[in-house]
This record gives sequence, structure tokens and C-alpha cells, in this order.
Amino acid sequence: MSTVIKNGTIVTADLTYKADVLVEGGQIAAIGQGLVGDEVIDATGCYVMPGGIDPHTHLEMPFMGTYSADDFESGTRAALAGGTTMVIDFALPAPGQGLLDAIKVWDNKSTRAHCDYSFHMAITWWGQQVFEEMPKVVEHGITSFKHFMAYKGSLMVNDDEMFASFKRCAELGAVPMVHAENGDIVAEMSTKLLAEGNNGPEGHAYSRPSQVEGEATNRAIMIADMAGVPLYVVHTSCEEAHEAIRRAKMNGKRVWGEPLIQHLTLDDSEYFNQDWDHAARRVMSPPFRDKKHQDSLWAGLASGTLSCVATDHCAFTTEQKRYGVGDFTKIPNGTGGLEDRLPMLWTYGVGTGRITMNEFVAVTSTNIAKIMGMYPKKGAVLVGADADLVVWDPEASKTITASAQQSAIDYNVFEGKEVKGLPRYTLSRGVVAVAEGKVQSREGHGEFVAREPMGAVNKALSTWKELSAPRPVVRAGIPASGV
Amino acid sequence: MSTVIKNGTIVTADLTYKADVLVEGGQIAAIGQGLVGDEVIDATGCYVMPGGIDPHTHLEMPFMGTYSADDFESGTRAALAGGTTMVIDFALPAPGQGLLDAIKVWDNKSTRAHCDYSFHMAITWWGQQVFEEMPKVVEHGITSFKHFMAYKGSLMVNDDEMFASFKRCAELGAVPMVHAENGDIVAEMSTKLLAEGNNGPEGHAYSRPSQVEGEATNRAIMIADMAGVPLYVVHTSCEEAHEAIRRAKMNGKRVWGEPLIQHLTLDDSEYFNQDWDHAARRVMSPPFRDKKHQDSLWAGLASGTLSCVATDHCAFTTEQKRYGVGDFTKIPNGTGGLEDRLPMLWTYGVGTGRITMNEFVAVTSTNIAKIMGMYPKKGAVLVGADADLVVWDPEASKTITASAQQSAIDYNVFEGKEVKGLPRYTLSRGVVAVAEGKVQSREGHGEFVAREPMGAVNKALSTWKELSAPRPVVRAGIPASGV
Amino acid sequence: MSTVIKNGTIVTADLTYKADVLVEGGQIAAIGQGLVGDEVIDATGCYVMPGGIDPHTHLEMPFMGTYSADDFESGTRAALAGGTTMVIDFALPAPGQGLLDAIKVWDNKSTRAHCDYSFHMAITWWGQQVFEEMPKVVEHGITSFKHFMAYKGSLMVNDDEMFASFKRCAELGAVPMVHAENGDIVAEMSTKLLAEGNNGPEGHAYSRPSQVEGEATNRAIMIADMAGVPLYVVHTSCEEAHEAIRRAKMNGKRVWGEPLIQHLTLDDSEYFNQDWDHAARRVMSPPFRDKKHQDSLWAGLASGTLSCVATDHCAFTTEQKRYGVGDFTKIPNGTGGLEDRLPMLWTYGVGTGRITMNEFVAVTSTNIAKIMGMYPKKGAVLVGADADLVVWDPEASKTITASAQQSAIDYNVFEGKEVKGLPRYTLSRGVVAVAEGKVQSREGHGEFVAREPMGAVNKALSTWKELSAPRPVVRAGIPASGV
Amino acid sequence: MSTVIKNGTIVTADLTYKADVLVEGGQIAAIGQGLVGDEVIDATGCYVMPGGIDPHTHLEMPFMGTYSADDFESGTRAALAGGTTMVIDFALPAPGQGLLDAIKVWDNKSTRAHCDYSFHMAITWWGQQVFEEMPKVVEHGITSFKHFMAYKGSLMVNDDEMFASFKRCAELGAVPMVHAENGDIVAEMSTKLLAEGNNGPEGHAYSRPSQVEGEATNRAIMIADMAGVPLYVVHTSCEEAHEAIRRAKMNGKRVWGEPLIQHLTLDDSEYFNQDWDHAARRVMSPPFRDKKHQDSLWAGLASGTLSCVATDHCAFTTEQKRYGVGDFTKIPNGTGGLEDRLPMLWTYGVGTGRITMNEFVAVTSTNIAKIMGMYPKKGAVLVGADADLVVWDPEASKTITASAQQSAIDYNVFEGKEVKGLPRYTLSRGVVAVAEGKVQSREGHGEFVAREPMGAVNKALSTWKELSAPRPVVRAGIPASGV
Repeated sequence: MSTVIKNGTIVTADLTYKADVLVEGGQIAAIGQGLVGDEVIDATGCYVMPGGIDPHTHLEMPFMGTYSADDFESGTRAALAGGTTMVIDFALPAPGQGLLDAIKVWDNKSTRAHCDYSFHMAITWWGQQVFEEMPKVVEHGITSFKHFMAYKGSLMVNDDEMFASFKRCAELGAVPMVHAENGDIVAEMSTKLLAEGNNGPEGHAYSRPSQVEGEATNRAIMIADMAGVPLYVVHTSCEEAHEAIRRAKMNGKRVWGEPLIQHLTLDDSEYFNQDWDHAARRVMSPPFRDKKHQDSLWAGLASGTLSCVATDHCAFTTEQKRYGVGDFTKIPNGTGGLEDRLPMLWTYGVGTGRITMNEFVAVTSTNIAKIMGMYPKKGAVLVGADADLVVWDPEASKTITASAQQSAIDYNVFEGKEVKGLPRYTLSRGVVAVAEGKVQSREGHGEFVAREPMGAVNKALSTWKELSAPRPVVRAGIPASGV
Repeated sequence: MSTVIKNGTIVTADLTYKADVLVEGGQIAAIGQGLVGDEVIDATGCYVMPGGIDPHTHLEMPFMGTYSADDFESGTRAALAGGTTMVIDFALPAPGQGLLDAIKVWDNKSTRAHCDYSFHMAITWWGQQVFEEMPKVVEHGITSFKHFMAYKGSLMVNDDEMFASFKRCAELGAVPMVHAENGDIVAEMSTKLLAEGNNGPEGHAYSRPSQVEGEATNRAIMIADMAGVPLYVVHTSCEEAHEAIRRAKMNGKRVWGEPLIQHLTLDDSEYFNQDWDHAARRVMSPPFRDKKHQDSLWAGLASGTLSCVATDHCAFTTEQKRYGVGDFTKIPNGTGGLEDRLPMLWTYGVGTGRITMNEFVAVTSTNIAKIMGMYPKKGAVLVGADADLVVWDPEASKTITASAQQSAIDYNVFEGKEVKGLPRYTLSRGVVAVAEGKVQSREGHGEFVAREPMGAVNKALSTWKELSAPRPVVRAGIPASGV
Repeated sequence: MSTVIKNGTIVTADLTYKADVLVEGGQIAAIGQGLVGDEVIDATGCYVMPGGIDPHTHLEMPFMGTYSADDFESGTRAALAGGTTMVIDFALPAPGQGLLDAIKVWDNKSTRAHCDYSFHMAITWWGQQVFEEMPKVVEHGITSFKHFMAYKGSLMVNDDEMFASFKRCAELGAVPMVHAENGDIVAEMSTKLLAEGNNGPEGHAYSRPSQVEGEATNRAIMIADMAGVPLYVVHTSCEEAHEAIRRAKMNGKRVWGEPLIQHLTLDDSEYFNQDWDHAARRVMSPPFRDKKHQDSLWAGLASGTLSCVATDHCAFTTEQKRYGVGDFTKIPNGTGGLEDRLPMLWTYGVGTGRITMNEFVAVTSTNIAKIMGMYPKKGAVLVGADADLVVWDPEASKTITASAQQSAIDYNVFEGKEVKGLPRYTLSRGVVAVAEGKVQSREGHGEFVAREPMGAVNKALSTWKELSAPRPVVRAGIPASGV
Repeated sequence: MSTVIKNGTIVTADLTYKADVLVEGGQIAAIGQGLVGDEVIDATGCYVMPGGIDPHTHLEMPFMGTYSADDFESGTRAALAGGTTMVIDFALPAPGQGLLDAIKVWDNKSTRAHCDYSFHMAITWWGQQVFEEMPKVVEHGITSFKHFMAYKGSLMVNDDEMFASFKRCAELGAVPMVHAENGDIVAEMSTKLLAEGNNGPEGHAYSRPSQVEGEATNRAIMIADMAGVPLYVVHTSCEEAHEAIRRAKMNGKRVWGEPLIQHLTLDDSEYFNQDWDHAARRVMSPPFRDKKHQDSLWAGLASGTLSCVATDHCAFTTEQKRYGVGDFTKIPNGTGGLEDRLPMLWTYGVGTGRITMNEFVAVTSTNIAKIMGMYPKKGAVLVGADADLVVWDPEASKTITASAQQSAIDYNVFEGKEVKGLPRYTLSRGVVAVAEGKVQSREGHGEFVAREPMGAVNKALSTWKELSAPRPVVRAGIPASGV
């Protein structure tokens, strides 16, 4: 059984050219003119691109005795509907829980996935067991480790723990990641705001201004530099954090930044909406920012100082959001976006000329696959690559609305947005998961993707760090100790 | 009994003009032409300037069961010999010790001072007692509070403690200060270096590179901004820290930076000296940096992004330094400089044209008096001001050498430097303490200077923060809680 | 005849203190408690400050066969009404006209001035005569030279002319100034916009975006650095220009920036007003910018990266503005502001806490006097200084309206703004020019103020440049020429 | 006739993988395992990479009545010897000469080329003829236009000419390029230096410090932004220029920077060599800089703020250099590098870990092909691409020396440098031009490469500029003109 995608224009991070794509056994078997296959997908007028990869989701994430509303079933279904063919979720060990244990938990959750997936491992505490299990996690194909600088009292780790974990990542050729907000200050500010009667959803935004994110980003970069390892900063939402990343790069450091589609297109005026539900549904960390920050993020995508666009998809229902009535710190943090990331980015990025089509592919798929150690299995239109593909119709349009979405929740933060540019087909390892807007994917089709450590950037950085490592001064004579 | 300083040129932060100065009762009684007094000091060919103020000294500081070698007696004698007429030292409460208790301890130490002095209060731990004693400290005339972000396990405070203390400073109109180095990372790096056999004095420099200082500076600035208070950063030694300060100012924040004369004129090649003693004698935190950083600091003095020049005078004998043979973390941190700050800055700053004479006065005296709430009692040549004056001979020169110094220690980090520009006379509240190079000051002459809180910058910032404070959204209806 | 200002609080760039001020012979004779004089001015509840100095006005400026509507009579009357006691105008030689000739023309214009004044000399062309007359201009007391990088075809000079003039300034110890906009690009953009039908007043703003100003500022700074002279940048209106200034300072260069009160408080939405007259009345160069730029300018005043606040007062009537109907390039460039600068800056700066009262005095008066070589004759509250004083009532308020203004024009760009903080009295060399809001100044009272060259900053920079000047390599043997 | 490269590891900008490469008809016919061909090239232990492309050479360039010593014959031979398989030279019309005429002249010169080549067209003057011929030049396959901001009196164009040409480029989808140094200031500084007796080669460096380049870079960026076109900055040699590029990118502008291998690895101490010849041989514009600038350039390559590495190969013999004895302005500007670019960059970049192998390919080949509109014909290891390949032996090493070089000149600026990493084979369109260090290429083998306009970045930028173009305000009534 083979499938050929005909008459389309292939768009990769690198190239734009007309060719057919032949798919066999879940992989790309040939790219060229006049290919034939058992089944034909017509891509006339369309772009054939690597399917989107979302490097940042939280499906069925445990929270306050309940779970985020989209699990691997609905979440990956939504992903495919929007042209995304892979997600990377986070295995979150409970305090004291082993890393390998956590993998088992997440393995269980993900059995229902419609599309391929992988995990980042979160370092939520530090100890000998964690130190010892990290290599095993890498062997398992999980080569990125997340560190929360916020969420004091639960997920947050301190600077010395981060340094220890980052050093371990350096040894293992893994990529450390950070959620960069100063958790101490967020906690203090939250207490202060609540004490002053600022308990509404806008209090959430007040409690974590952009400086707080910029500071933590800057700090994580320094720690990574001291540990001699590259750094991946998730959900870079503001100029301050982006500035810290640019400054690091300007000094030859290796840092990747990941803006979310939400931060690129929505702003903090949402929190001032008269409708509490409207505001609370937008509560996520970091919060939405203003136009100045959005301009910064867009420029970063065009210039390459920011590398990936994600969603941090972590969907809670309105009912769940209402846990935080009267106390914004209790509003579950998170929004959806898996179905909307590609159409929104295309419309506001490619459609306006802020980024090229090739840059679109780079930031939604190829860069992510490279950084995360699975290129060109994923993120490529190359012979031998997985046939995770989207046939993109640049003329198709719709108005985003919750009533038509795959996600399990009852609203959509992009409600009412007009998008132009939509998937006509989405293929997951060669299987047509979405056709002409209809989702026909299969629960459980998704497979775990093991990733490679020791990427080229890790190796180069290690070489440089070794070359420039501190050397002791050799002295002829040293005095006797004064003590 | 009155004294008149005749035939000199008065140089202030503001003005350069020829006039006589009449001193009576320890204060400046008149400034003008042809003044007469009981005693005459000839200032022909000299500049008459406000005496230097050193905002950063550690005299008789407790350390590992002993004390820094210069106490208030020898330290203030050295100060006067170099044209400095006031020092601000640090009261350092032991863990759990009350702030008022600490003041008593430092009051005792300072009874032997030759020149006037004040104290900053260090916040070395946090608790209800500290919170409650802070207003009393301010009432006592101590309006600046120091926070150590380094020295983990002893003096270091965490971000939440800093935020709490900074907020308290905001309420009291006090100025928070920081020693900005990331103590977690310094501790980890030190352990790593020692494990790798890097135990010499150069290991001290390796353990706290400029990024580590830049990071902490950036963090302290964010915390101060969140707390709504200005910030004073001590011993700004590097471009990274200076950059963080500039970036803060560019966003309208109120931050002062204080380079040390050592960092302006000495570099890190000192730590690579073949003589262990030579290297160890230069061990201080932050360590000396390279020319790039020096250029940055000098530019900051000229442009006003850095405000004060200090010494962090904390002198240890070679014998004391040798506590750290075989383990650089045990080398007492600190160098001298009180006698040399003014001549060195004049020679390398005014003599080269990097700064003007007026800027010299500003950064060694006037800015400090203003920021520290004691202008124009100190730091001014104005009628009514204390007659803390230096008659500066721009043609006098010498070679700095330990053998001729006032300090109690057996070496000088500036040994061999040629300086041009020296005090001909130094007056402390009208009393001639140094004349023609001879120190004739009196032990115990120095008095405590009480300082004022609620400076103009504190007040302005409070106004702005109140104007721009978070306001809750008023909503017509709020849903019932989901819990 | 003496006057004493009683019961007020003196506010200088340096100090805030309660004292009386005695005025005799046009100068400050004494400052102290309980002073007596023939006449008493009550300053109860008021601040006594140095009168404002406006470093940038164009009174009776020739333009298209007519003149700017405010001449030295109405212009200086407006100045006094608003607390400004001195203006520095620009002598503008016609092409080929000698500099000394131009001084004569401006001497004639200024005979009717109500307050003191000085001139900057514009270098509108370059040649041997200009080179030779520059020292004579300096001897005349005009120690600053203005260069227009815009106004191609009339006032604009090229880079090589600027370099030649700047070098001459360096030799003379004078201060070069620039109007920084790229005149080539403005001309090309204007042509393009007109061709596209963009002929309204908003086209003026489109034709000179902030990048165009930033570029020219950056270029002028480089040229000044090559010539070894400080630089004064007039009407710094945007972040790009401010950034160039900050970057220069960060490298130790000596540059001063001068935002206008208009750019600090008005924005570019004015040009999009439906009323052509409204928009055209706001046409000036550079045009108003947006909030981002305003924030930048305010931060610059607080941090000291910007030094002075001016008006560029160059008032044209609505009738004159209408010359440009159908072609924005013919709209006379300029707005008023002399009467409003101090109240507007106080209200939006001191009133909000963005700057302190002392900073207010610095940027409106003292810094200007220092940079322009006339401190402390002007800009100071010191014994011996000219009694150019304003008694400022922080509680007085009004709504700005053209109907009540001194200026000769028929509108006011600040129309409708509420200001709190107004002069109760304004004294020009001891003579009460404004009392309780009533202007009682005398035409012709104003005198020319000769200024000093070779300020401290010029001298220091020359020293540094001499030290770091290129030195030829001394070579033993040099080959014979190949030609 | 087919050739297969066996047992190597393919390294592209994107990927590193083991595969054979089959070459037929000058193109890559297949990539895969176990390929067979008529001829076999053994790549065991080697990397198979796209041949280098040098985007910046001046072969047989007319100069002062003579020509640069390497013509297309020796120059392209040197290129191949070093693994570079294509050069882009500059067609330089004489003043008043038509562009099409200039192409003919360069077509003639290039008939002897050993490897493929293309041309940039220089805009050395402006007029209706130039305007009209530009589209024909683009049709000819020359889609990039060079502008000299230096060389006043010969090649230099002014800002209005640049704007006009850049606008034309925008219309044509072409890429404008700049040599960014302020020609006015260089000319003035040169005159001043010569007058002061600074006539040696070091005077060349003194006459064009990094600020002069930074300024011009900044200016060109602004002009390109106003014209709505991307910009390519040649020979970016310093932090100031790099900073301007970074700042532009940070604001979403499209700018590419091109450091030279010389600036990356050699510094300005060369000009202070006691041997006049040694110093003069290194005279090029911009001159070599110091370590600070080198660090900046390396960081730019790693972070992507700089895009390409070139040579500006323009070789003059020692005899020619000696034209400038006694007057550095007469020393022909230029150095060699074509043979050394790849080994030097590999050694100092990949060998140290400053860049990865993939980044090496990107900056020496792929990025250049993309920006210059000829990807993937050139710069790629893809089926269908030209078989311009280098088989790179990372273990091969040599000491660079003029005596062994292909270039026609009698010295080498890299003399004595040890390089590790050399071509084992170089293929030009499938023909083995270099084998085991022996050059066996054929004069005249090289062909002109026509390039495509309207790259993706040009198109995206045009879309954005159209969206954000100035729109006139529609007004109900406009007053009558005042004139």
C-alpha cells in the first residue's frame, strides 16, 4: 500500500519546489516528478510541508486532584486537525518519585495518542536517585530535561539544583530546558496582591510581570554557561527574556527560545475583560503581554534569535478555571492551542510577510526536530523520513470557534479569529489522519519517539568549554598555611 | 579659633573657582575672596575639595575567629592620609542577632576612629525581629541596608528575603544595597574547582566569573523594582553588571553602581602571578577583571551610569591570607585601598582625561553624600557644611609602597604605582589631620554621622509606583467558585 | 534697591532647603535665614529655583520670505510668563554669508528681548571664511555651533563639512550641535510620499520616521568622536536617537541629548486629526512620536543619559501653516512652547514621580548653563549668580489655552492640558518680570550673555584624545616605492 | 560516465549522515547506500560537503592602471585547491559606463575560470541609464547590486543614490549590498594622518577605525529599511557593524552580514610589524581589528546574526603594495584568501568548537547560495544539484605557506598557520579538480551561474511593507492654502 501526494509544492525549512511525494510503510519513499502510488492525494494549489511538532504540551496533567481536560486522546486529535503530527509532553515526577517511575505513568497516559509523541523529563527535585536515573532516561530516548524556576513549593528547583542537573545534562549530551520565572518573587507578589484585594484573573498577570521572566531567563542562561551546556527556554513571552537570549547569543552562548502562538497573537487586555470567565480562561504562565513584546517575538522568529513556536497546550474547562474565583492563584494555569497553532501562525506570520513559508516550517517543525534530537526522522520532507506531512491549503479559511474544535474544553482563546491557511490533509506516518477538514485518525496510532542525545551543538560546546577550561597556575613554591 | 584656606581653587562636583574658605567650629563659615582667620593654610597651586567619602569599608570585621587587620584606628588614619575624611562601614549582625545589638558592637569598634563615619546595616537573616528593628535602625541614622547574594551558608540571603527587606526599605525610605554574586553558583563552582585540583588563588577568580556577578545584579534590580525601591549595587566590577545597571536605567529604574578603585586600575593577571602570596593578597570578591571591564567602568563614571568609587577596604595580612594555602575558599577576601583611592583615581582618571575634576569630586564624595542621605553636611564646599576638606596638590607625586603606608598590613596591592596628585592638607571637621604628608590626626576624633531617610529619589519613585500600581478590575458579576 | 525672597524653599539641581534670597544689583547677594531687603517677595509654600533656560529657540526666524511669528519681544515675554529667564537662539547665516555678519543681524533682532539671551552659531556652509571667523565668534561669547543634517538644499551640511567644523570646534573648545535627521532620505521620502498622494500633514511624519533621526544621531556621534570633541544633539525625540547616545556614552564618549517638552508629552496621533489645521500646527522636525519613544525620553531624563529639556520654539500662525495645504513639505516647521515648558514638565515629570524636583531644575536650567559655558552666572542659586529666579507655586494650576498666552500665534499645541505647578514670580536679573501671573516685564531689558569656551568636558576629552592619538610605527628600513 | 563518492559522511547545513553520492552529467544523481559508478572516489574518514562558495572576490580588478594579481585563472584555481567551487566576483562599471557594458568586460575576464562563477553588479554612479539597465542585469542572472560607501572620488555613492538604487532593487526583487565605511570621514582622516606624518601602513588602519564602519553599516540598514528591501553587508569586520546588524534584526529587519576569514583570524597587530612589506601586505578595507571584534564575529556565526564567510580575495604583489611607500593611501587595498578560507575556518571554528560542522557548511556555502538566489543548484548535497563537492579530510593538516600556494602573489597573509582539515578531493560539476592535494582542474571549465531574483525574504518583506505602508488621512474639509 503506497500513497502519492501529487501536484503540490513542497515547502521545507530550506526549499520550495514542485514535486510529488511517495509514501510507503509510513515513510517517505520518493520525492520527484510523476510519481505513482496506490492511493493519490491531490495537493493542487497546496503546500506539502513537514507536519507540525509541538514541543510543549501538558496532556492529562495532574493538577489539584484533577487533570488537564485534554488528554492524549483529544489532545493529539486536536493536533492532527490543525496539521500538527507530533507532540512532546512532559513527564512530571511527583516529589521524591523516581524518573523511571514517572516515565511509566506517562507511558500509560499516552497509549491513546492519535499521533506520535515524545516526552521531556522534568527535574522537580534533586537527589542521588535523580542523578543516577538521568542516564537511563536518556537511554530511553528522552534527552531533554525541564526545570521549573517558578511554582514555588511544588515544581520549583533552586539554582544549585539547576546547576547540578545542568552539569549532568552536559555529561549526557542532553538539553536542559527551563520555565523561566522567578518563583520566589511570584509567590511574594501574589501574596501582596491578594492582601490588597487584587484577587481577580488580572492579578495573575500583575503577579508575574515581564521583568520576572526576563530575570529568570537571564539566570538560567548564566547557570547553563557555567555548566557548559546549551539551554532551551520554553514559552519566551517577552522582550526582557528575548533580550537575555539575544545577549547570550551575542556572547557565543547556545540558547534557544520558544515563543507560544498565544503570546504572538493575544495580549494582556484579555485579562481586563469584564467577564471573569473570559479573563480566567486566558490565565497561563507567563501571562499574555502587550504589543511591544509581540513585536519582539515576531522579530525573533524572523531573525533566528527565537527558534520554535509552541502552545504549552494545557487545557482546563471553565468549571476548572472557576476553582480560582476569589483567588487568582487557584485558577489552573493553561490554555489550549494545539489545533490553532499552525493556522494562526500562518495567518499572522506568513500572511503578513513577517516570516517566510520556509521560516514557518522551521519554527513549527524542523528546528524543533533538530534541537530535540530526532531530525530528519521528524521535521523533514526527505526520503527515509517519517511521512508526517501536512498538505496545506493557503486559500482555505475559517473562523476559529470552540463549537467546532477537537479539544475537550468549552471555549477557545482564539474564538472569533479569522484564519487563512489550513490543512487539507494531515498524514501521520503515512496514514491520512485528516482529510478535507474531517478528522479520521485512530486512537492509539501514535507511537513514542526515542530521541538522540549528543547533538552537534552539545558536542561543539563541550569542545569549546574543554579548550577554555580553568587551568591551575603552576607555582615553584607555595608558602606554608597560616592556620 | 578659625582657620582660613587661602589662595586655592575650589573644586566641587559642580564648580571650579578661586576662593578662600573660612572654617569655624568644624564647619565652613564663609567662602569668598580675602577671608581672614586665626590660622592660615596655604593652598597656592592646589585644589580645595570636599574630603573623600568611602562608602564601603570593613574595619575590624570579624572573620574566622579573627578580624580584618585594619580597625577603625588604623583604617581611618589611612583614609585621612589619602584625603578621605569619612567612611561608611557595615554593621554585620551574626545569625539571629538583632540589628540594634549589632549597632552596639560597631559603636564600640568605632570609638577609636580618626575621622567621621557612619554604618550601613547588613540584613544577614530575616525574621520578625529584623522587620521590627529596621525602623529603629533608620531612626538611629542608618538608612541603608546591605544584602549579600553571595557567601552561601553565612551572610547570604535568598530572593524572598531580599524582597521582604526591600519592601521594608521602600516603606522606610531607606536604600537597599547588594553584594551581587550568585552565591549558589559560586559555591558549586568552588567545589568543582577544588575537586579538579584548582586550589590556588586563581581558583578564586575562576569560581566567580563576571557572568555570575552580572546575573545577581540583574536579579537584585528586578527585585528592587518589584518592591518599588531604588537600589545601590556595591563593587560593580564588570561589564555584565554595568550592563544590567544601564539597562535598568534605560527603563527608568533607579539604580546606583559603585566601582572600586581596585577594579578600575588592576586586572586579573595578578592572580596568575608566580608568587602565591602576591596572588592571594589580591583575593577579593568580586575578583579583578580584565581591560574590557575596566574600560566599561571608566565609561560609566564619565557617563554617569556608575555613581561612586569605593574601596571595600578589608585588609588582611599575608599571614591571614595564608589561611587559604591549599584551598582558595579559605583565603580571607579583601584588599586595602583607603589611603590610595583618591591619588589612584586622580592619576588614572583626571590625569588621563577620562573624567573631569568635577566628576572626580562627584564620584569620590558628593554623589555618595547625596545617595547616602547626608548632603550637604558632607560632600560639599558650602557654608554650613562640615569642614571635611582636602587641599589637593596636583603636582605632588609619589610611588605607592607598603613601607610608607598607614594601613596595618604588610603589603599594598598598588605597590609601585606612580601617582601624581596628592593631599597637601586634609581637614576633618576643621581640624588639620594631615599636613604636608604628615598625619597628625587624633584617635577618637571621629564621630558617628546620622543620615536621613526619604531622599528625593525614594520619594519620586514611591509616587510613580503608587500611580502605576495594579488596580483590580471591577466586574459586575463573578461566577460561583468551581470548587 | 534690594529685594528679598522670603519663606520659600530653595530647590537647585543639588539641594532642597529653606532659606531666604537677597537680591541686589541684579545678582544674588545673600542666601540665608532672616534676610532683609527693601522689597519683599513672599514665597510661602513655594520653591525658589533658578529660572528656566531654553537652549533652543528660533525667534523671528526667516522663512520663505516671512518670519516665525514670535520675535524676541513676544517670545521672551512668553518665556518669562512660564518661568524661563533666558533663551539661546540660533544665528543662521545665509549661504555664503559670514558668521560675524549673521551675529549683527541677530543682535538687531534681539534688542527687544525681555529676558537675557545668547546665540548658537549655525554652520550652514563651509569655507575658508567660516573657518577663520569661528574663533572670532567664540571670542564674541558664542561657543556652540549648530549643524543641520537635514533641510537638504538649504541648511544641510555634509559629513566632510561636519568633520571640518567639528575639528575646528575641538581646537576652539567649542561645542558642536546637530539637528540629526538624514536630509537625503527625508528629501527622497518626501518626494515619494507626495508622488503617492500623501500630501497631508501626516505625510510630514511619514517622511521622517524615527530611524532617520537615529541614523543621523549615530553618524554625528561618530564624526564628533573622530574629531575629538563632545557633541550636543538637539531635539532628541526617539528611542533610536537616544539609543545611539546611550551607546556612545557606554563607550566613554561625551554626548548630550536634548528632548523637547513637546516630544515628552504629545504623540503622533495628533497628525491623524481630522482637522487639517490641527495636524499642520503640530508639524515640526522631528515630528511627534509614540508612547514607546516618550517612555524612552523620560527614562533618559531620570537616568541622565539625556541632559536638557528645550522647546525648539519656532511659532507659525495658522495662516502661515496653510502655506503647506496640498504639499506638506511647504508647511513651516515649528511649534511654540516657551510659556509651557516648565509647567508641563513639572506636571508630567515631578507630579508623577518620573523625575525629582532637583532633576527638574537640572534639565531645565542648570545642566544647560553648564554645558553652554555660563554656569554659575546662570542656572544657579548661589551668591554672585544672576538673580534669574522663579518662585514656583506647586499648588497653582491652570488649563493651558491659546487665548491666555503671551505668544503671538493663534493656537497652542498644549491647548486643554491641565497643569499643576506654575510660577508665582519670575525675576530677570532681580527685576520682577512676572508677579502672580501678571507679566510686567520690560521690552529691551534682556541682555546678551557671552559664554565661555573650553569647558571641563572639552578639556578632559582633549587630554584623552591626545593620549590615545595614533602614533606612527618607527621602522628601521622601508623599501623603495614600487611606482 | 558516472562517479561515485563512497564511504564518506555527508555533512550539509542541515544534516550529518553516512551515504554515498553518485554523480552523473555534472549533477548529483543519487544519494544512498551502496551506490555504484564508473569511477570511485574513496571518502573513507572524510566528510562530503557542498563545495565552498566565495561570495566576495575581486579577480583581475582594475586598479591604478594595473590589475589585481590573481585573475580568474589563478584565482579560481586557488579556490578549488582550498575546496571552494564557486566565486562571485564584482562587475565594476567605470564612471558613466553602462551596466551591460561592464558585464561584457567581466564576461571576458572570466572565460579562463576553472570553477563556476557569478557576478554582483556594482552601482558606482547613478543616472537614468543605470536605472533602466538594472532590470536587464537581473534578467541576465545578476541579482545583487553592490554599493560602495567608501572610496570617495571613485566608487563611492551618496545616500540619495543608494536610496534610489535600493528602491529599484526592491522593485526587482534584487539584493542590495554595501561596502560600509564612511568615505567622507576616511578621506578626511587620511589627509589628517598624512599631514601628521602617519604615512606607514598602520596609517591605513588608523584612518578607518571600527566606528567608521559601524556608522556606515547602520546608515545602510536604515536606507534599506526605508526602501523596503533586505540588505547584505559585505566584510563585516567589527563589533560596531555587527551590533548595527543585530539591532536591525531585533527590530525585524532583514540584514545579512558577511565576515571575512581574515578578520576572524588575524588582528591589527600585523600593521605594527617592523617590516613595512609585512604590514602593507595586510592592508585591506576594512583593516584587521582586535580580539574583541573577532570574538564578536565568531559569536555571530554561531548565533546566526552573521550569515556568510568570504575572503574579499583581491591579491596584490609586494611590488604593487609598494606603490604606497610614503603614502598609505596609495597601497592597493586587498589580500588573498581563496585557498585558505575553508581550512582556516575549519581549524579555528570547527576545531575549537566555536561552530559545528553544519554551521561551517552553512556559512561557507549553503547560506550564500540561498541568499544569492542559486540554491539548491549550488550549496546543496541534493539529487539534482550541481556536483560541486568537497571531500574533506578532517585529519589532514599542513602549514600554510606562499611557496606552495596557487595564488599568483609572492606571500600569504596566513603564512605559518597550522591548519587541520583539508580537501582530499574537490569536484566542480562532477569533474575532479583537486585530488589528494594535486590540482588538476581545467582552465575555462568554469561557467557563469545565472541567479534568481525575488527570493522568499524579498517577497515576505514586500508584503509586510505594503501592509504597513503610509496611508493618507481622509479629511472632510481642507482649508485653502495660505500662500
